[in-house]
Amino acid sequence: MSTNVIDISVQPSTELFIKMVVSNWELQNSRLNSLLAQLTDDELAKETAQGRNSGVYLLGHLTAVSDALLTYLGLGDRLYPQLDDLFLKNPESAFLEKPSPAELKEYWTKVNEVLTEKMNAMQPNEWFKPHSAIALDIFEKEPHRNRLNILINRTVHQGYHIGQLVYLVKK
Amino acid sequence: MSTNVIDISVQPSTELFIKMVVSNWELQNSRLNSLLAQLTDDELAKETAQGRNSGVYLLGHLTAVSDALLTYLGLGDRLYPQLDDLFLKNPESAFLEKPSPAELKEYWTKVNEVLTEKMNAMQPNEWFKPHSAIALDIFEKEPHRNRLNILINRTVHQGYHIGQLVYLVKK
Repeated sequence: MSTNVIDISVQPSTELFIKMVVSNWELQNSRLNSLLAQLTDDELAKETAQGRNSGVYLLGHLTAVSDALLTYLGLGDRLYPQLDDLFLKNPESAFLEKPSPAELKEYWTKVNEVLTEKMNAMQPNEWFKPHSAIALDIFEKEPHRNRLNILINRTVHQGYHIGQLVYLVKK
Repeated sequence: MSTNVIDISVQPSTELFIKMVVSNWELQNSRLNSLLAQLTDDELAKETAQGRNSGVYLLGHLTAVSDALLTYLGLGDRLYPQLDDLFLKNPESAFLEKPSPAELKEYWTKVNEVLTEKMNAMQPNEWFKPHSAIALDIFEKEPHRNRLNILINRTVHQGYHIGQLVYLVKK
């Protein structure tokens, strides 16, 4: 009822704010999944634009970044740390053997399953604690740099690369 | 001090939520501004990839979308509604005359000046009210679809197109 609306708008709950951020994260995941469903493995292996990263590299990159969220959010060990050298620490190289598109799609799906399960199990106040890469003395001065903020940042990062991956879809 | 950190993480304030979202929005604006500073007008007029939107079209598109935030957030009249036909409602056309890169950069800067000023003047609880395009009966069931949520969504949208605009920068 409208009193309900007024209550919410006057005093938003912590749960509401978490839902706002997590639902935007899930929206990007579902957009990437729809995009992957439209592309053959050969199409995914192509450059997103002339001389730019391939779809395979960007999928590996996004998988590694999402996998690293397990560490940033204090949710336990990473699943695929071996992806960092190929897709995070180094630019794309034709000389390094990458996992196959099928393997990368499997890793991507698994990372999101585990992340979703562990994020859903977090207590609301856990989201507002410092992430693993910020010093406590800095966090005390900049408390907005918390775990939920990292998820907002990674959601935008995913959107950035989805904007490039969409160029693999034939017009 | 650390008690301060604990207080914040246990009971984050509405102001903290808003700062998290607005700071991510401002980060995307500053990234686009840095990118524009690297590009000549001729470079901005080029296609971001073969057969894809030009930088000029994407800058006009992002300017129109940000201008429309004035309406979504209930912050008053839009500055450049005339951009919608060219950059929002229709795909890019070689046959329609667009504003010059210099004009579009001016519009982009002005929209962000006005948006920033008006967003900073909003009362915290205003952000958690329904945006202009959602029906009240739906908002009562989905209160996370508020004005702040629209800003998260538009921040990701901007990241999506920045990922394409960055292809205009020579490697």
